[in-house]
Amino acid sequence: MGFIEFFKEFFLGFWDYETPKIMVVKNRRLGVIYRAVQLLVITYFIWYVFISQKAYQDTETRPESSVYTEMRGMGMLGDSVRDTTEYVTPSEGGNVISTILQREVTYDQRQGKCAEHYNVPNANCTTDADCVKGELDFGGHGQRTGRCVSYYNYTFKTCEIRSWCPIEEFAAVREPALVEAINFTVFIKNAIHFPKFKVLRVNIKPRKPKKLLKCHYHSKTSPYCPVFRLGYIAEQAREKFSELCRTGGVIGVFINWKCDFDVDPSACIPSYSFRRLDLRRNLPSSGYHFRFAKYYYKDGEEYRSLIKAYGIRLDIIVHGHAGKFSLIPTIINTVTAMTSVGICSIICDWIMLTFIDKNEVYSERKFDDTSKESSPPAVTQLTISSYGSTHSDLSEGVPL
Amino acid sequence: MGFIEFFKEFFLGFWDYETPKIMVVKNRRLGVIYRAVQLLVITYFIWYVFISQKAYQDTETRPESSVYTEMRGMGMLGDSVRDTTEYVTPSEGGNVISTILQREVTYDQRQGKCAEHYNVPNANCTTDADCVKGELDFGGHGQRTGRCVSYYNYTFKTCEIRSWCPIEEFAAVREPALVEAINFTVFIKNAIHFPKFKVLRVNIKPRKPKKLLKCHYHSKTSPYCPVFRLGYIAEQAREKFSELCRTGGVIGVFINWKCDFDVDPSACIPSYSFRRLDLRRNLPSSGYHFRFAKYYYKDGEEYRSLIKAYGIRLDIIVHGHAGKFSLIPTIINTVTAMTSVGICSIICDWIMLTFIDKNEVYSERKFDDTSKESSPPAVTQLTISSYGSTHSDLSEGVPL
Amino acid sequence: MGFIEFFKEFFLGFWDYETPKIMVVKNRRLGVIYRAVQLLVITYFIWYVFISQKAYQDTETRPESSVYTEMRGMGMLGDSVRDTTEYVTPSEGGNVISTILQREVTYDQRQGKCAEHYNVPNANCTTDADCVKGELDFGGHGQRTGRCVSYYNYTFKTCEIRSWCPIEEFAAVREPALVEAINFTVFIKNAIHFPKFKVLRVNIKPRKPKKLLKCHYHSKTSPYCPVFRLGYIAEQAREKFSELCRTGGVIGVFINWKCDFDVDPSACIPSYSFRRLDLRRNLPSSGYHFRFAKYYYKDGEEYRSLIKAYGIRLDIIVHGHAGKFSLIPTIINTVTAMTSVGICSIICDWIMLTFIDKNEVYSERKFDDTSKESSPPAVTQLTISSYGSTHSDLSEGVPL
Repeated sequence: MGFIEFFKEFFLGFWDYETPKIMVVKNRRLGVIYRAVQLLVITYFIWYVFISQKAYQDTETRPESSVYTEMRGMGMLGDSVRDTTEYVTPSEGGNVISTILQREVTYDQRQGKCAEHYNVPNANCTTDADCVKGELDFGGHGQRTGRCVSYYNYTFKTCEIRSWCPIEEFAAVREPALVEAINFTVFIKNAIHFPKFKVLRVNIKPRKPKKLLKCHYHSKTSPYCPVFRLGYIAEQAREKFSELCRTGGVIGVFINWKCDFDVDPSACIPSYSFRRLDLRRNLPSSGYHFRFAKYYYKDGEEYRSLIKAYGIRLDIIVHGHAGKFSLIPTIINTVTAMTSVGICSIICDWIMLTFIDKNEVYSERKFDDTSKESSPPAVTQLTISSYGSTHSDLSEGVPL
Repeated sequence: MGFIEFFKEFFLGFWDYETPKIMVVKNRRLGVIYRAVQLLVITYFIWYVFISQKAYQDTETRPESSVYTEMRGMGMLGDSVRDTTEYVTPSEGGNVISTILQREVTYDQRQGKCAEHYNVPNANCTTDADCVKGELDFGGHGQRTGRCVSYYNYTFKTCEIRSWCPIEEFAAVREPALVEAINFTVFIKNAIHFPKFKVLRVNIKPRKPKKLLKCHYHSKTSPYCPVFRLGYIAEQAREKFSELCRTGGVIGVFINWKCDFDVDPSACIPSYSFRRLDLRRNLPSSGYHFRFAKYYYKDGEEYRSLIKAYGIRLDIIVHGHAGKFSLIPTIINTVTAMTSVGICSIICDWIMLTFIDKNEVYSERKFDDTSKESSPPAVTQLTISSYGSTHSDLSEGVPL
Repeated sequence: MGFIEFFKEFFLGFWDYETPKIMVVKNRRLGVIYRAVQLLVITYFIWYVFISQKAYQDTETRPESSVYTEMRGMGMLGDSVRDTTEYVTPSEGGNVISTILQREVTYDQRQGKCAEHYNVPNANCTTDADCVKGELDFGGHGQRTGRCVSYYNYTFKTCEIRSWCPIEEFAAVREPALVEAINFTVFIKNAIHFPKFKVLRVNIKPRKPKKLLKCHYHSKTSPYCPVFRLGYIAEQAREKFSELCRTGGVIGVFINWKCDFDVDPSACIPSYSFRRLDLRRNLPSSGYHFRFAKYYYKDGEEYRSLIKAYGIRLDIIVHGHAGKFSLIPTIINTVTAMTSVGICSIICDWIMLTFIDKNEVYSERKFDDTSKESSPPAVTQLTISSYGSTHSDLSEGVPL
């Protein structure tokens, strides 16, 4: 045909609607299976995807979070008072804050020469010959001078070293634990912002600010009071506080925001959970401690107090998840649901053609075999003509 | 049939191509609807999914980021100069850095005995009987000695306590705000690495390093100069600097990397945004302050200067998102697009069969009802035979 | 028909099974193409999606991680010993830890008046007239007094300023690098928790705790020993340690947990990688250094030692990824796979109808054109009637 013809035809064809031909099988058993599978798929989508997973929502899982922590409380160590400026570090109040619960202090250390600890490999000696001058043992405390001296006020001798003297193992004084710490409170302020939804939430109720700092958190009675007793935290983390005082430990404070902005945003309150993060097993590495020193000058010389501190480190970890209705995901998931229903046919076809199909009548009708057009002739003709061929002879061949 | 037969047949059948039979409905109205829906779906995919969402790209959203911050500047406090080593903390220059803007200093505190503050519950007394010895009030400053003393140089009396004396509330001296701080600059170096794409980007232009540290950031004029005036930051966060000096505050500095590595990676420049992270409402908890102390020894005794510092804490938060063409997501999304087009049939079928279908002629032809094979007989025979059944009588029944 | 009728019919129809009619094309070429495409799709899903991407697993990518770091070692600086309390900061042992490798110390600074550095813009002077009283140069060290004094013990003169005197540029003393630091070790304890799978993993083997702290990490020999030599880290990050001592640098320590909980969880061991995070180019901003001061009192006056420290900052960054078999994703991906196979038809139909289709016989049979029902008459009647229409005249027209 001519180009115009063709183009015209194409244009007309473009506006045709094409839909697959369906074979209806009046088979109750099959129908039931079919509907059952469909029901299953639809239930899955409606119940799991849409209701439980809220697939109709646009979600945001990594909100901008700001944490401010402040430790409060005070305890007695013998006659002297210890307050937060002494046992809390760092002072800036970020999302990691540690409290010292017990200290081993080595007072008045200064650069000088003293005896190495007897545990250090080949530190024990009888004569200077046993000590290599200038040796710097990796596990030791300093550089050997080459002399063999008596171990402080003891009778036995060890190698002399240049170091901060006296050495910690010998001179450290273990203070009693700060038992009052169980009543210390940590105030955790957490402001969270979901940029996508432009929602800002804070874990503090705006009203009654004065009362705020007096309350203590309890999930039931005071969900809006982010002031936690260390005792409460330890208990929630299933740890004995006395044990923590001895070895120290790292405890994670998890703030979970699960917000559904289809309902009132003010309904979105954080939940808190506590879990010990470091190992509980009795390794030398278990627990939490750190060393620091206070430096000072006495008659022109630099001294320091070396402090080995056991304590609780709180890591505040914020998880946020917010959802809000959005068209795109809704459409996508609905389409997926609809297309997934198609899976039913695959299953049922298989059942039908394998088990139910008696003497292949279904498959005969479902599958129109192009190769079968040549037998028996007459039928073929009909078939062909039934698709509008124009063999004049044929159409006559059919009796009216 | 024999096994060989069957297997042969199966093997032959395996190479057949099966395609659904389609009914073409020459209905202009329907055709238009059909194409319209198709257009909608295709537009959605091409425009939204592929162009706007760049679904053809493999993405990476959590790059490895390294932040180094350094505060610069200097101000006068009375006659003495204050520089960064004094008002910036911590000094290591991590992703959280605070500047002290105003201080309340309690000089020369030392362990001792002094009067409790009159605000503390039942601290006011007239005789020693009013003060319980050894009591440790949680809201107070120390342990009561049991004596009732005059409140410093005042006439009224409060209970005496063991504590760091004098107590802060009485002796704290509020220094003037460090107003010059508005001109302090913070230099934020941010190196970011996308492991998947093996791309390293830095927010500094390699060229003209000398000029680098002199410039000030401005999104328009100098996108490559990560040196920010505190004044600029406060202004961008819509905060009054004077207000910040008074209460302190936490400000988030957001560095957003949005990179498309299909174009030149060097085109990917970060954008900066600033927002106040803590609450702005007038709560006791609003603003940002922290306490620390400087310890020193005077004639063998330990003293400290307790400092309550109000300041600005900058939390540098880095967001990264990079995309690069990848075959897999492209294929997946294309397939999804194609299959989603199928949704049109569902809609249009419904329209057709419900509204347009005049006297059920379409549904008759769309749905081939297996149960209808027995009426009227002749037709049935034809129908059956038209699927190649071999009723001898029938094939004869048809005139050649 | 009556309502009951209709309802009855609908109910019956509800239990019918509907399946699309298929045309079987006995065309070897087409069949081969069809199967080939199918094979491709199936291979892609089985190999890539299921085996390589483990799409049958439910995954968790953001585990709760807790890091504890501790630096060990000791070095000599001249005659004095330097240990961790002096060169490691911060002491709390978080996920960022820096070691000082080289220091520039300005001893005994105190508030006072001294000469400005000659590099500062217009600080050089010949008479007091050259110095503006009260001026506070941003790039300088303090506030000008208005006097012009000789630059310390030099002949030339600069403006006098109020500042911490003497100024760093003049008085700073560069200490030798702490070369022994190459043998320092950092112990990195990392406990990781996957809430979804309730699995806790630690990068330390529970057994042989004593040996633990003595060993050194090597991926081959000791994957379970998280004690790293600084020299090893620098080498892994492809950095010269001597270079790092000079300029300092930030090195990322990446702990990668890739866990498959379908196999034994204890098989999931972290892998470590090291990469320099800051710029390596020779900018003034390259490298890593920070300033801090030690404050002390001498005869009632406050002094400080200002320290500019070059060092290595280790940023410990933890990546976690865990997977475990789950039904939902398996189903979803299987369905997707099955539906995606449908894409083959689209491709093959196109091929068939465009290239192979000889004289349109396929398309004739694939597409049942509704508009063709009126020609030739006889056939039409058959066709119509074969769908059980009830034109009395027609059904009579058919010979029994």
